[in-house]
Amino acid sequence: MAYFDNAATTFPKPECVYDFMNTFYRECGGNAGRGSHKLSIGAGKMVSGTRNRLKQLLHCENKQIVFTPSATIALNMILQGVLDGKMTARANVYISPFEHNAVTRILHHYEEIGVVNVKILDIDDNFHYDFAKIKKNFDKAVPSLMVVSHASNVIGLISPVEELCSMAKKYNAVTVIDMAQTAGLVDINVGLETFDFAVFAGHKTLYGPTGISGFAMKPDFDLDPVLFGGTGFESANQDMPNDIPQRYEMGTLNIAGIAGLHASLGWILDEGIDYLWEHEQLKRKELLKILRSYHFVKIVGDNERNQYVGIVSCVIDGLPSDTAASVFAEKNIAVRSGLQCAPLAHKTLGTFPSGTIRFSCSAFTSDADFVDLKQSLEWIKENL
Amino acid sequence: MAYFDNAATTFPKPECVYDFMNTFYRECGGNAGRGSHKLSIGAGKMVSGTRNRLKQLLHCENKQIVFTPSATIALNMILQGVLDGKMTARANVYISPFEHNAVTRILHHYEEIGVVNVKILDIDDNFHYDFAKIKKNFDKAVPSLMVVSHASNVIGLISPVEELCSMAKKYNAVTVIDMAQTAGLVDINVGLETFDFAVFAGHKTLYGPTGISGFAMKPDFDLDPVLFGGTGFESANQDMPNDIPQRYEMGTLNIAGIAGLHASLGWILDEGIDYLWEHEQLKRKELLKILRSYHFVKIVGDNERNQYVGIVSCVIDGLPSDTAASVFAEKNIAVRSGLQCAPLAHKTLGTFPSGTIRFSCSAFTSDADFVDLKQSLEWIKENL
Repeated sequence: MAYFDNAATTFPKPECVYDFMNTFYRECGGNAGRGSHKLSIGAGKMVSGTRNRLKQLLHCENKQIVFTPSATIALNMILQGVLDGKMTARANVYISPFEHNAVTRILHHYEEIGVVNVKILDIDDNFHYDFAKIKKNFDKAVPSLMVVSHASNVIGLISPVEELCSMAKKYNAVTVIDMAQTAGLVDINVGLETFDFAVFAGHKTLYGPTGISGFAMKPDFDLDPVLFGGTGFESANQDMPNDIPQRYEMGTLNIAGIAGLHASLGWILDEGIDYLWEHEQLKRKELLKILRSYHFVKIVGDNERNQYVGIVSCVIDGLPSDTAASVFAEKNIAVRSGLQCAPLAHKTLGTFPSGTIRFSCSAFTSDADFVDLKQSLEWIKENL
Repeated sequence: MAYFDNAATTFPKPECVYDFMNTFYRECGGNAGRGSHKLSIGAGKMVSGTRNRLKQLLHCENKQIVFTPSATIALNMILQGVLDGKMTARANVYISPFEHNAVTRILHHYEEIGVVNVKILDIDDNFHYDFAKIKKNFDKAVPSLMVVSHASNVIGLISPVEELCSMAKKYNAVTVIDMAQTAGLVDINVGLETFDFAVFAGHKTLYGPTGISGFAMKPDFDLDPVLFGGTGFESANQDMPNDIPQRYEMGTLNIAGIAGLHASLGWILDEGIDYLWEHEQLKRKELLKILRSYHFVKIVGDNERNQYVGIVSCVIDGLPSDTAASVFAEKNIAVRSGLQCAPLAHKTLGTFPSGTIRFSCSAFTSDADFVDLKQSLEWIKENL
C-alpha cells in the first residue's frame, strides 16, 4: 500500500518506536508516579525523560509539558479551562479560517450557551493574514482568546503564529497554537512569551503511537481543571493539586504510549528537525509535480508564495471526493477524502460541502509510493 | 521483582497482548473510521471486534460500548454529562463509602459550585450495606445519581451493585458502577436495566495496556457530551453527532491500545472468567495466609462473610505505610502505600490519613512471588 494519509496518523513509525514501546512495556510496564517500587520509578523516569525531550525539541525549557490522551482532549482542557465560569461578558474568540472540528466544535458549544462570539481572522485571496484588518477587528472587539492551527490539516498551509499571537498578546488575549501537523517538523520557539499554550499530537508529525499527546503551557498560567480524578499525589486533597503537570493529568498515564513517544522523539532529535523539514519539502514537491501533470486534477489552496507542510488537497474533475478515495483505495493508495474534520477550512477554500482528496506525506513516503500513485492516476485517466 | 501492585495496573500482561499490540500496530496502524483505505478499514474492524468482545464478556449486547482513554475520563464524561446544566435544584448524589478520587474529586467540584449534595451509602460494622437505612435516606433525599465501585481499590471488597442499583432505580436515579477492579474478573450481567453506566479500565483486571478504557451505556440514554471534537463522521455538523459511540469518541482512537485490549479480551474469554475468578481467590487466600502469619501485620477491612477481589490492605505495627513500602521496594516487592487515591475509603476504614500497604494479585502472581514476600516479611520481623 502507498500510504498518503499521514496527516491522519503517520505510518509507519520509525522502527525504534515499535521496538521501544514493546520492550519497555514488557519489561517496565508499571504505573508511573503511583508507587515507590522499581517498575513505578522506572516508568516515572521514562515519563520525565519524555517531557525533557519535548522541551528540547520545542525549545521550551521555560514551560511545563502536560500529557493528554489526544490533541483533542488537550484543546478541550485548555479552551474549556479558559472559558468555564471565567467570562463575565461574551468573550471574543478569534480563530484561523482553517480550524479543525477539535477547535470549532468546542467553541460552537460555548457559542450556543452564550459564552463566546467566535470570529475568524482575516486572510486575503492568497491566504495571507490581513494584519491591518485583524488589528481593526481586535480594536473593535477585543480578543479574549485566540486559537490558530500552526498548519492546516487540509492544505498544509503554515500560519504565521508568532506574528498573530504577538498581536493578540497586545490585547492580553490567551493564545493557543495547535501544532498537531507541525510539532517535530516545523522548528519554532514554543518557549516564546507570546504562546500561552502549544498543543501537540503524539501520533502525527511526532511519529509516536496513538493515545499520547499533550501541550506546553506557562507554569504560572491559572488554568482551571476541566477533568478531575486521582493523581497519585496529594490524595487527601479533594481539589486537584496545584502542581503542574499533575493538576491536569488525572488517572493513569498511558505508559505504553509515552514509551513510544519517548523513542520517536529520540529519533526526531537524532535525524534533526531541519533534515526532516527539508525531506518533507522534497516529498511535497514530488507530490505536486505528479498531481499537476494530470489535467483533471485541481490542486486546492496552493500558492507558491506560502509555506506548507507535506499535505496537498485536490479535487478530481467529475469525480466526487468519496468516489475518488474509493478508487484510490482499490488501487491500494491510502488517501483521505471529504471534509477531513475541518468544514471551516473547506468553507474558506470553497470546497464545502463536497470536500477534497487529501494526500499527506511523511519521512517514510518512498519513491515506490509515488510510482504507485502515478499508476493509479494513469488508470483514472484511461478509465474514468 | 515480586509484583503485588496489580490494582494499579496488571503486570505482566498475557504474552498475546504484547504480541498483538506490536504486530497489529506495525502492520495495520491506520486511523480507524477516518478513511476508506485498507489500513483504516482494518483498524475499524479490529475496533468493532473489540467492542463485541466487551459486550460478550460483560453480557451486554443491549448496550453500547464507548471507548475512553482512561476510566477516570469515562467517569468525568458520565458524571459531568449527567450533571452539567441538567439539575434544577441541588441533586442528591449517593456514593459508596469506598469511592476513589476519580469519583469524589469530580463530585467535590460539583458540590463546590452548588450543583450536588454528596451522600454516602450506609454500611454496618461488617461492611454490609444497610438497605433499611439507605431506603430511609432515599425517601428523605431522593437520589438523582448513584455511583458505586464494584470493588474497592483499597481492600478489594465487592459491593452488591445489583441490589443497590435496583433500589436507586425505584427512585429513577441514574446508576453508575465503576468496574475498574472487576471487569473481566467478577462475572456480572452489565446488560441489566438497573445499570445505566458501567465503567471499565482496560489496563487493570482486563489485562490490556494503558491508554484504553471505556464504559457500557444504554443506547437511549440522553447523555450530554462533555468533550467536543472531530469524529470523522458528520463533519459538517458543529454539534457532536447523535450516534453512539461517535458522540463520545472525539479525536483519534488509541488504535495501539485497542489492539492490546482486543488481545487481552480474547485471552480472558479463552481462559474463562470463572477460572480467573477462582484462581484469584486462591491467590488472595495465600496472600492472607502469609500476611496473617506475622503478628505485626494487621489486615484492614477483611471480613470472612464478604466477597473480595485479590486486593489486601494492611498496616505494619510501628512502620508508617510509606516507610514500609520503601522497605518492600528495597526487597524487590512492589506494593502500593498511602491512600491509593481513595481517601474516602480510608476514612471509612479508620486508616486515614496514614493509609495502608496494599498488596494486589493477578492471574500472573506466582508461587515465587509469595516466597519473596515471605522473605521480606521475615527480614522485617528480624530487623525492624
